[in-house]
This record gives sequence, C-alpha cells and structure tokens, in this order.
Amino acid sequence: MSKVGVIMGSKSDLPVMQDAIDILKGFDIEVEVDIVSAHRTPEKLFDYGKNAHTRGFSVVVAGAGGAAHLPGMIASLSPLPVIGVPVKSSNSIDGWDSVLSILQMPGGVPVATVALNGAKNAGILAAQIIGASDKCVLDKIIMYKEGLKVKVNESAKDL
Amino acid sequence: MSKVGVIMGSKSDLPVMQDAIDILKGFDIEVEVDIVSAHRTPEKLFDYGKNAHTRGFSVVVAGAGGAAHLPGMIASLSPLPVIGVPVKSSNSIDGWDSVLSILQMPGGVPVATVALNGAKNAGILAAQIIGASDKCVLDKIIMYKEGLKVKVNESAKDL
Amino acid sequence: MSKVGVIMGSKSDLPVMQDAIDILKGFDIEVEVDIVSAHRTPEKLFDYGKNAHTRGFSVVVAGAGGAAHLPGMIASLSPLPVIGVPVKSSNSIDGWDSVLSILQMPGGVPVATVALNGAKNAGILAAQIIGASDKCVLDKIIMYKEGLKVKVNESAKDL
Amino acid sequence: MSKVGVIMGSKSDLPVMQDAIDILKGFDIEVEVDIVSAHRTPEKLFDYGKNAHTRGFSVVVAGAGGAAHLPGMIASLSPLPVIGVPVKSSNSIDGWDSVLSILQMPGGVPVATVALNGAKNAGILAAQIIGASDKCVLDKIIMYKEGLKVKVNESAKDL
Amino acid sequence: MSKVGVIMGSKSDLPVMQDAIDILKGFDIEVEVDIVSAHRTPEKLFDYGKNAHTRGFSVVVAGAGGAAHLPGMIASLSPLPVIGVPVKSSNSIDGWDSVLSILQMPGGVPVATVALNGAKNAGILAAQIIGASDKCVLDKIIMYKEGLKVKVNESAKDL
Amino acid sequence: MSKVGVIMGSKSDLPVMQDAIDILKGFDIEVEVDIVSAHRTPEKLFDYGKNAHTRGFSVVVAGAGGAAHLPGMIASLSPLPVIGVPVKSSNSIDGWDSVLSILQMPGGVPVATVALNGAKNAGILAAQIIGASDKCVLDKIIMYKEGLKVKVNESAKDL
Amino acid sequence: MSKVGVIMGSKSDLPVMQDAIDILKGFDIEVEVDIVSAHRTPEKLFDYGKNAHTRGFSVVVAGAGGAAHLPGMIASLSPLPVIGVPVKSSNSIDGWDSVLSILQMPGGVPVATVALNGAKNAGILAAQIIGASDKCVLDKIIMYKEGLKVKVNESAKDL
Amino acid sequence: MSKVGVIMGSKSDLPVMQDAIDILKGFDIEVEVDIVSAHRTPEKLFDYGKNAHTRGFSVVVAGAGGAAHLPGMIASLSPLPVIGVPVKSSNSIDGWDSVLSILQMPGGVPVATVALNGAKNAGILAAQIIGASDKCVLDKIIMYKEGLKVKVNESAKDL
Repeated sequence: MSKVGVIMGSKSDLPVMQDAIDILKGFDIEVEVDIVSAHRTPEKLFDYGKNAHTRGFSVVVAGAGGAAHLPGMIASLSPLPVIGVPVKSSNSIDGWDSVLSILQMPGGVPVATVALNGAKNAGILAAQIIGASDKCVLDKIIMYKEGLKVKVNESAKDL
Repeated sequence: MSKVGVIMGSKSDLPVMQDAIDILKGFDIEVEVDIVSAHRTPEKLFDYGKNAHTRGFSVVVAGAGGAAHLPGMIASLSPLPVIGVPVKSSNSIDGWDSVLSILQMPGGVPVATVALNGAKNAGILAAQIIGASDKCVLDKIIMYKEGLKVKVNESAKDL
Repeated sequence: MSKVGVIMGSKSDLPVMQDAIDILKGFDIEVEVDIVSAHRTPEKLFDYGKNAHTRGFSVVVAGAGGAAHLPGMIASLSPLPVIGVPVKSSNSIDGWDSVLSILQMPGGVPVATVALNGAKNAGILAAQIIGASDKCVLDKIIMYKEGLKVKVNESAKDL
Repeated sequence: MSKVGVIMGSKSDLPVMQDAIDILKGFDIEVEVDIVSAHRTPEKLFDYGKNAHTRGFSVVVAGAGGAAHLPGMIASLSPLPVIGVPVKSSNSIDGWDSVLSILQMPGGVPVATVALNGAKNAGILAAQIIGASDKCVLDKIIMYKEGLKVKVNESAKDL
Repeated sequence: MSKVGVIMGSKSDLPVMQDAIDILKGFDIEVEVDIVSAHRTPEKLFDYGKNAHTRGFSVVVAGAGGAAHLPGMIASLSPLPVIGVPVKSSNSIDGWDSVLSILQMPGGVPVATVALNGAKNAGILAAQIIGASDKCVLDKIIMYKEGLKVKVNESAKDL
Repeated sequence: MSKVGVIMGSKSDLPVMQDAIDILKGFDIEVEVDIVSAHRTPEKLFDYGKNAHTRGFSVVVAGAGGAAHLPGMIASLSPLPVIGVPVKSSNSIDGWDSVLSILQMPGGVPVATVALNGAKNAGILAAQIIGASDKCVLDKIIMYKEGLKVKVNESAKDL
Repeated sequence: MSKVGVIMGSKSDLPVMQDAIDILKGFDIEVEVDIVSAHRTPEKLFDYGKNAHTRGFSVVVAGAGGAAHLPGMIASLSPLPVIGVPVKSSNSIDGWDSVLSILQMPGGVPVATVALNGAKNAGILAAQIIGASDKCVLDKIIMYKEGLKVKVNESAKDL
Repeated sequence: MSKVGVIMGSKSDLPVMQDAIDILKGFDIEVEVDIVSAHRTPEKLFDYGKNAHTRGFSVVVAGAGGAAHLPGMIASLSPLPVIGVPVKSSNSIDGWDSVLSILQMPGGVPVATVALNGAKNAGILAAQIIGASDKCVLDKIIMYKEGLKVKVNESAKDL
C-alpha cells in the first residue's frame, strides 16, 4: 500500500502544509508527517532522503520557505518523486526566493514544484502519482475533479 | 506497460523538449510525441486531455512558452499527473511568463513544474513517477543517480 | 443590439469584475455574467468559447488570477475580441502571474489586456469596441470622458 | 469602410510594428501609418488623438518602448479603442518599462495591451474589433484561425 | 523670484505630494499646487506644460502613479527641469509601474526622478535647482543638511 | 559662468557617460570630467563632494553601475543638485541594482535619477537646471526641443 | 579580545538590528552600537570607516534600507570584513533596493551580505568570523548549532 | 596557518570561481579547490561540511548557480564562516535564482553572500576574515586597497 511522506522545514510551515495532509487523507492515502530542516537537522535530512524509498514511501512532499533547500536535497538523496511546496514564510522576499530555490534545480535532479503556498495541489499531485498505477486512486481523482465542476456550476447559479 | 506523452505547443519548442524524449528513451520508457497547441488547436487539446488516461499514458509532459496554457489545460482535462516545462521562447519576457503561467495553478488542479527549459528533468521526473510503482524503473533511477556522482567525482580529479 | 459577455474563473473574482458590469450597464449595454473556470469546468469553457459569436456577443470580458488561462482559452476558441482582466487573487504572486499569463499570448491569438484589477477599464474598452461601429455608444464615451475632466477640475478647485 | 491607424513613437519601432501593418493588409483592412512621438512631437500627438475618430479611424494601434506614453496619451485624447504594443527598444529594461507604462492605465482610460513586441496580435485584435460589427471581417478571422490549426497539424505530422 | 509648480495626477496623490509642498514652504520658496491629469484633462496638461516657463516657474514637480505619464508629458512640453515623483497608488503593482514609467524616458526628454513616494526629496531637489543660482537658497540647503546631521547624532546618543 | 562636473565610478563607464559630456558641450556649457570611485577612492569622493559648490560647479552628474553609491554619496556631501546615471555595467543584474541603488535615496538627500544608461538625458537635465536661471541656456533648450520635433517629422515623411 | 561594531543608518533600523546585538551578547562577544548615516553624517561615516580596525574592532555589522550605502562605504574605508544587513525599511520597494545596493558591490570591495532583515544571521556570521581564529568562540558556535537541532527535533515530537 | 576551501557545484563554475583562487594566492593564502555537488554528490557534501573545521580550513568559499544549495548546505554542516558566490550559470533566470537561493538563508545559518559572479570579492572577503586575527594579512589588504586607489587615479589622468 502506497504511503506519502509530508515534511517541512519548520513547524511554522504547518498551517500551509496541512492542506496537503488533509487532501491526501481525503483520498484515503496514508500520510506520515515530520519536520526535517535542511539547515538545522542535516543528519536527519540525510537519513530521511537516503531511506525514504525503502521505508515504504512512494512520494515525498516537502515544503520550505526563503532559501528553501529541503525539497532539492531530498531529491538529491532519494530516487523517489519529490514534490516541492514553496512556502511564503515571514522572512521571504514576497515568495520569490522560495519559488526559485525549489524550482530551478539543475539537470539530473528534478523537484516537482507547485504554486507558492500550493500545498493542496501538492497533495493532489501526490495522489495523481499514486493514481498513475493504482486504478482505485485514479477513480477518486476523477470523482474529485467532478466535484470541482459541480461547485463552480453551483456558484454560477448564485449570480 | 507505462507510456509517457510528451507534447509541446509549437514545433519550435522541440529543441528544448528533445531532452525529455531522450532521457525517457534512455530509461526504456515508451514515449509518444505530439504537437498540441492550446491556442491554435483547442479541439486537439481537448481530445488529448480527455483521453490521455484511457489511451495508456501514465504521465503527460507538456512544454510551452510565453503565456503557456498547455500544461495547465491538460491538467484541467486529465486525471493523470502532468509535468510542465516552461520554455524560454523567443517572445518570452526572460522566461518569467512561461514559469508563472505554468507554476501558479489554482487549488485543485496541479501542474508538476520543472525549471525553465528543464525538459531533461521533466523526463527524469516522469520516470520517477513510473518508478514509484515499478521496481525495475526505480532501480534504473538509482543507477542514473550513481552515474551523476561518478561524473562529478571524475571532473573533480581533473582540477 | 450588441451584448457583452462578462465571465470570471471563480466567484471570488466578482468583487473585482463587478466594476466591468457596472460601467457597461451605465452605458446601457446588455451584459451577461457567468462563471467559467478554465481549470475546473473545461467543457463549459469550450462551449462558451465556441459559441459566443453565434449567441449574440460582440465582445467577451474575462477575468482570472494566478495562472490565468481563461481569457487566453476563450481567445483560442472564439473569433471575437477578448478583453482580459488580470485579477490579483489571494494565491497570486503580487499579481505578476495574473498579468503575464494573460498578456503574453503567442502570435495569432491576442487578448486585449487591461491593468491588474482593471475591470472598470475592461468595461470601458468593451464599450469603445462597440462604439467603433455604433455612433450612439461612441457619443456616450465622449460624454463619459467629459465627465472625467469635470471631476478632476472640481477636485483641483478644492485644493 | 473601417480604417486602422498604426502609429509608433520612433522609426526604430517600425521593424516590430510592420507585423501589425502586414496582418491588417492581409485582412484587406485599410491602414494608415505614421510616426507620432509623445515626447518629441506633443502637438502632433494632440492633433492625432483629438481627431482620429472624425478622420475615419475605427481603431488606433500605437507602439512605443521604454517609458511608453504614446498609447496612453492617445487613449486620453480619443474615444476610440486604442491598442498598445510594448516595444522592447534598446533603452528598455528587458521590456518591463514598456509593458508597465502601457498596461497599467488608471481607471477611466483603458489601453488594450498586447504582448511585448506583439504587433502581429495588435493587428489581429484591430481586425477582431472591426469584425465585432462586420460579418465579412469576422469570417476572415474565423478562416485565419482555421489556418493556424492547419499549420500546427502539419508541423505535428513532420515529427 | 523663483516659483515651483507642484502638480499631481489625482487628488488621491495629495497625502504623498504634501511633503514636497511643506519642504518648499520651509525653504520660503513660492509653490503653486494644482491637479493635472495626463489621462483625464489632456488640454489642461498641454496648457500647463506649454506655458509653465512663461508663467514664472523655475521647476515643475509632478507626481503620479501606475502608468504615470504626467511627469514625462510635462517634460515633453516644457523646457524647464521636471522632477517626477513615482506614487505608489492603490492600483500600482508594488510601485514598479510608477517608477519605470517616469524614470525610463527616451533620449532627449529627461525627467529627474526621485524615490517611490519621495515627494520630500522632490521638494529638496527643486530647492537645490533654485539654489544652483541663488546663494540664499543654497545657504538654506547647507543649513538643512546640518540639521539632518544634528538629528542623527542626537538619536545616536539615545542608544 | 556655470560649470557642470561629470564624474563616473570607473573608466569603463566612459562610453556611456560621454553622451552627457557631448550634449553639454553642444549647449556651450563648461564641463569638467573626472573619475571618482566611491569604493576605491573614498578620500577623493569626500573632497569632491565637500568642495564642488565652492569650486564653481552648479550641478554634478555622476554615473555608476552595480551597487552604485557614487551619486548618493556626492548628494550626501554636497548642497548642489546631483544627477545620477545608472550604468548597466558588466557586473550588473540587468541594471536593476544600478537603478535602485541610485534612485531610492532616503528622505533628505535626493538624487535626480535618469534612465538606465541615460547619460544624454543627464546632460540635458543639467542644462535645464542651469537654464532655470539663465535665459540664454533656456532658449537653447527650446531650440533643441524644436530640433527633436523636426527630426521625427522628417522620419515620418520617409515612411 | 575581539569586538564587533554594529551600526545602522537610522534609529528606525534598531528593531531589526537588535537581533545582531542580542546574538553576539549571547556569545559573550563585546559589541559597540552606533548610528552612522552615510547620507546624513558623512564625516562620521568616514571617521568610523577609517579607524574601525585601529579601534579594536574585528568585524563591522552595518544595516541600512532603501539605497543602502552604509555597508558598502564602510567596506570602502576599512580593511575589516564588513557584514551588510539589508533592512526592509518603510521607503523600500519590497526590500529589493536594500538587497541589491548592499550585495552588488564592485570587484575589490566585498560586503558579506545576509538575508533581508537577517540581522540575527549577521550576528552569527560575525561570531563565526571571530571563531575562525578563536577556538573558544568556535566551540560556542558548534553548541549553538546543536541547540538549533534540538529545537527542531522537539517541535517534530509535538506534531 | 590558515587555509581556505574553494568549492563549486560543477566544473562549469570554474571560470567564475578562478577569480577567488587567484586573489587568495595573490595574498599568499593556501587554497584547496574541489568540486562538491549538493545535488549529485550529497555524501561528499556531507563529509566536506562536517569535517572542514577539523581539516584546517578557516573559511569555505562555495559557488553555485540556479537553485544553488551548496553554500547553504555547507553552512548547515559546518561551524566555519561560509562565503557564497551566486554563479550566473546557463540554466539560471538572469541570476535571480542563484542570488536568492544563497542569500535568503533562515535565521541561525548565515551565508556571507557576495555579488552575482563576484568570486573575486569572495576571495578578498576570505582574506579579510583571516586578516581579522592575522595582522600580516590585514596589512596586505590595506596595501591591496591602496593599489585600487592608485589604479583609479591613474585612469583619471588618462581622461
């Protein structure tokens, strides 16, 4: 059974990252949450990145802000797909640092980057990655997208 | 057997997107290449997005430049994971438009964005997504990462 | 009799887009308002874009934020002039994503872009487009511009 | 019969602006080309803006670079729809000044802005504005869009 | 006796522009304040710009926001030195539009641009321009600069 | 008789700054050129700034690139109007550093900033500052502006 | 015994700069705090920069905002390592001016720049510079880094 | 005797980083050069960072481009002062990604950042850090700064 690791550089990122956790739970996908700081707990970072694929994870979702090195370093250490969430933290320059230091990875080591503070989309993307080989999860995503449609159509009726 | 769709908005994007095709072929993953323009062939876009998951694709890699709507519109239409490659096309403002119009998708519809012109990483990420459930592909990625290490170490010896 | 379609990607865009509706009504131009999400209701998008010119619209005003694909996709599907309003939505990076993903359309498929949150100007521009062939609307625009002048002159007297 | 005025701030803008002239001629729309500098020929600017709508123009296309005031000042003086083309001139900061000084017009005075160096799209947009009330021009735009589709499909076959 | 014209595009710019008025009055320099909108009162703009040097002004200070054309158009029309104040108005994209559309004037037509919302410095600069030929005003500026020094030194003592 | 000091941070700035020298000579205004580096010759900077107003200068034009401190430091030391020319030097980030480190001076110490590489406009502005109290120079500026107009009109005839 | 000079351009920078003072005191490193304005107290700036290395300072930490010339000018005048703290002051354009005018120093005159408002890191860096030759301070830094790790691990337990 | 480690993420960074090596050798400071890639050789990164302070290094200079994680990760692992050189590599977005992903480190883990491609200044800063406790190196820096002054004065004579 697939499992997603959701990690973040600081507990202050949790309000943003909670969206990823919630959406994955909504898809009945197992989630394991942890705080792993590239800059303050480098040994934990190495251990996490080195072993994620042998510990049953299919995908890692990593959120960080400012000079955000967590997603890229996990991608350096792990063969798994890594989804990066740029967090607009208090010390960020309008989010540009978070976005660019996650997105602009060198050739050979990708990070699947989502929008600034886009943890919800990181969760959906993790589900889609699992759904790429799991028909049951794929069907849930199809249903989820139907739900989005229904909500827009209802809001249109209210006009 | 998993298959990756690699599409681009214009034939002029091919020199960039070729990197994705090459790396996937190097991993022995089947690739199907097409040109699908969100702005000039909207019906083909619609057809491609609606049917990709029933035509045997596991992942779609979509590259486009400027106001780049192709990756996001495929993500709108398909339940599959979509990887977006911002292309620094000739009409782009230093690539910022390509990056932002792919990355900043609204909640509910993610695009896994890679670096500007990062088609090579899009290919690797597509392989990693397949590798998330395919041990054989995962092993190839582990070997690929070993190869990166060896090359750096050799270049260090030349100093 | 000319009619303007005013659409937006989400109901949360309405406070901004209301300015377009109000100014068009002030010019006695018929307006039809709807919510059409490029990313959540792609079929409605296609239907709207394909048929706008046969349903009596002369111009479409489309507002969206973030990776804003609505105006460009309507422009892809419709031969009508499309006016795009970049909305500074809550998930936008200071509005730059909204602006660039609407403005930077590729050659062949223009979107008439107005300022960030500039829905009022989108309404005036729609009226000017109608006024280009309708003397009565043109005269109203001339009067409207006179009114702007009077207000500035009055505010100058208050100094 | 509708006529489009194509003006630019300097003769050095002509290589960019020629695309607008060519596309309009391709649609058999009458074009009148002139150089009008907001900063060096303000009287000509004033005269042009004040009289464009009585001289038979339906639309004005204005291109300029750097602190580009020409489109906005024509929009200030004329009730006609004004299309602005931000030109990436030699003294421009990567085109940002050209884009922002045309796009960000205050409430009351819109400029229909197209992409940086997007003169071709300015021409198409001018045709669409005329086509909003002229069935014959509208049909040509529908055919033009069909042509775009054919070209993409042919380029896809070459892959 | 020298006189400075302080103008602004909208009454909403007054809270920013008041700093220029206050500092000039503090230097006993005559100030005449007016609202002149490049986009809403173009005739007044032309009249103001054409006649400023014959109406006894030595310098014009012009403040505006967004696509800020007022300072540049006065500079187009007048041989006097024109000081431009980029105002961070409510519709501005973080002030970048205001700054670039005032600063990036083409060769031949300068605007002396000060910092975003820097109306105080515009007032001082106007005084310095007068002081370039008026020993009495120059001495006041020397005294003013002494005053700045004293204040910093006093604040250092408080530490 | 008025004299303008034209200084620059490095000899490599001369190709840009020559435009200021040439235009001032064209107005028959005396120019004194020097290299003064804020970062490499701070004592010369101090001496220059402290004494410029007693050495017969009316205006100082200062050009520099990157973290460009020369114009601001002269403005700190001198009561004269200081014109800053942001130079797009080889180590500059597209000119943004040059522009912002000259333009964004704190309240109390203005620098009259011109466009990136806008040395020609710096020369004209220096002449306008002298012309604010010197009828003869003012007349030359009026003639210069007439000349700009004639050139544009001639180029329009060539179309 | 090593001593660190902490200076800032204005008393309004103190709330930011206090972090540097606190962290240095926490490392038992002597700190001397002063206000030195490059633009308002240039003589004090010169005196401070010229004499810092003979007055017992090992490092100078300088914070400033907007067109921030203080760190670069101290670096011009002193042979000591200078750490620059870009302060996001009220007149700054989102901090970009502060960052670029401190970071982008020309070849020959470095400023060790830390993050926007990163005074805490400036203090740590000053301690690390002292620790480069002082085993006792180095050990304190090692302990400090251990403390960071412990805090992250504790926050992870709370999840 | 002090020793400086100069490392870079890729051999392609060497043309930029050579400036740091050259200037340090000019100051007779021992330099050890290596290639350490955060993303391709994470174990070497870990080993380097963990042991730098016990292997005789006083300072580490680290250069990297794009999503540049090398300097920050060394700073995470080592108690030594780390100087970061943002390299404008071929895949960088005009250098902004390189700058922001090095500069914007979180509180607790500083990187002393120099200008884009500013490896020369990184070398000088490393020497200044050694000079903070080594009178002989400090004297060399004082002499170096004298040399800068002489060169500027000579270039001024050539005007």
